Amino acid sequence: MQSYSIGVDLGGTNMRVAALEAGGRQLDAFCAETGVNRGRDRVIGEMCAAIHRLAGRFSDTHTLSGVGVGVPGIIDIDAGTVWSAANLPDWTDYPVRAEIQRRLATPVFLENDANCAALGEQWLGSGAQANNLCMVTLGTGVGGAFIFRGMLWHGTIGMAGEIGHMTVTPEGPLCGCGNSGCLEQFASATAIKRMAQEAISAGKSADLERAMDSNPRFSAETVFQCALKGDAAAQQIFDTVGSALGVVLSGLVDALNLARYVIGGGVANAWELFSPALFRELRQRSIVFRATDPAARMHKKETTVTRGKLGGDAGVIGAARLPLLSGIPSPSQTRVHE
Amino acid sequence: MQSYSIGVDLGGTNMRVAALEAGGRQLDAFCAETGVNRGRDRVIGEMCAAIHRLAGRFSDTHTLSGVGVGVPGIIDIDAGTVWSAANLPDWTDYPVRAEIQRRLATPVFLENDANCAALGEQWLGSGAQANNLCMVTLGTGVGGAFIFRGMLWHGTIGMAGEIGHMTVTPEGPLCGCGNSGCLEQFASATAIKRMAQEAISAGKSADLERAMDSNPRFSAETVFQCALKGDAAAQQIFDTVGSALGVVLSGLVDALNLARYVIGGGVANAWELFSPALFRELRQRSIVFRATDPAARMHKKETTVTRGKLGGDAGVIGAARLPLLSGIPSPSQTRVHE
Repeated sequence: MQSYSIGVDLGGTNMRVAALEAGGRQLDAFCAETGVNRGRDRVIGEMCAAIHRLAGRFSDTHTLSGVGVGVPGIIDIDAGTVWSAANLPDWTDYPVRAEIQRRLATPVFLENDANCAALGEQWLGSGAQANNLCMVTLGTGVGGAFIFRGMLWHGTIGMAGEIGHMTVTPEGPLCGCGNSGCLEQFASATAIKRMAQEAISAGKSADLERAMDSNPRFSAETVFQCALKGDAAAQQIFDTVGSALGVVLSGLVDALNLARYVIGGGVANAWELFSPALFRELRQRSIVFRATDPAARMHKKETTVTRGKLGGDAGVIGAARLPLLSGIPSPSQTRVHE
Repeated sequence: MQSYSIGVDLGGTNMRVAALEAGGRQLDAFCAETGVNRGRDRVIGEMCAAIHRLAGRFSDTHTLSGVGVGVPGIIDIDAGTVWSAANLPDWTDYPVRAEIQRRLATPVFLENDANCAALGEQWLGSGAQANNLCMVTLGTGVGGAFIFRGMLWHGTIGMAGEIGHMTVTPEGPLCGCGNSGCLEQFASATAIKRMAQEAISAGKSADLERAMDSNPRFSAETVFQCALKGDAAAQQIFDTVGSALGVVLSGLVDALNLARYVIGGGVANAWELFSPALFRELRQRSIVFRATDPAARMHKKETTVTRGKLGGDAGVIGAARLPLLSGIPSPSQTRVHE
């Protein structure tokens, strides 16, 4: 029988669930409301029931390798617990992995959601065949993840990938984290909305002002639509998104010289609008990018900066990848050459 | 017989040579002029002769494991060649490793000098017992290196560690690399001298002006001496060094969550003068540093940011470490889990 696995991408609002064969073929996928406000036990109960139903449909034809769960928070991989998660307040200090594993009677792997997105893109998306990769997710906030030598890099306490709080301009807008000028203040959906409101207040765009007045759900998406229609102030905002991302990515390219940098998350839908500024900054600022720019064809080993291929499915696909990777060493089983 | 190895740290001006036992005990060390202007063949000839004499003294008591050579440039590790080195113009496209190996009849390992410094500090210095580490070398320029899971991270074309060209302030002083606001423009010995000259031109320090007038070899060292004597403008320069380093390190701590960040190179001698600003920025800017600050004692796994213990010997000690590490996989033999 073909082996398969089930991935869950647990967001604050929705949870995505998908079943994939080990070869990458998708068997089924669906989305359900998370309703985190109803408490941890209800959410875990419904998630397990959904997985159970899904698994039942493939029990005659496939062997389940395990379940991977992506969570928007800092994970203690060894303990299988959530160390900190802003949108899941009652999940900390609770044996999440052990509890799900007990209910489903199958191996369960818990992982940070941005790390899952990186694994998803590396498996079936823009990072395919890349042994090392940096993922940046531009959503409500900005997250990130790294894969070195084919393995996720978690950092010493699982906090690696906080790319959203890297500084773009030391004297820039104050961030909720305490820093000022964080990437998240320029390249998140939240920042796009804030910059649009600033442009409206400054009287810079009648189009944006009309859009805000007529749309009670004015969001980054609205700004995107205005930019597509040619509004200069809205386009300038996406130029700022690309510039800020370019400053931070230039630094990461120079520091790490990875093969691929993949930009995902909802804001990546505006790739055509912000990527010219991103590449302008990379070519101006990064000596490593210039030496490895695919456009320059100077070197056979290129630095590829690209949009994620899997869109919002990167996380659930990467979560489904987790049980299939279980043969490789976990971060706590690393080789020490002393 | 005890095994030992020989390291060479080949600088533009001097070459350091050291023989160390596998356990880390130093057998001998010396320094000679490099005289790179006399050409590659003279330099390699004299280096090989020096190694030969040194090896002769231990041939009765020790077994030579090999020779490691640290070079200030971008190395093609697999080919054993220098891909690019500003101070060694005639070394590129020449089979450096093969030629030295032929002359010495012992295994030879070629490596970038900042990578050697990281290995040295990890072996016998501030990074001891750290399985993952970031090294920043503050010298004439600013270099860097990374160790992940006990192994040097070279990047896809060996350019990883270009920390000196990460952006501190996007609109800052122009750098020779083409970028503006690079760390190197704030935290190198060259930048310290430039900032002192700017302070003098602006009439901000009579002390610095007197020091420059009376000392034809006015340098970062002179600025350091003025700061130690209490000159406010000189102290402000070291505050700028620490702030700039803090902005970049905060980003690397947030992105990578490594265990140790070691600051080496000649400018690290001014640690007492610039480190207060460095830690001020880290505590303000880095959410990962705040979660792992040793002073806060919140977590058993701390982020240690510290001065290198080995000073100018880090590179030669790390070079000597290379032959002793030869059992571990090279970057081209990485595990792919597909």
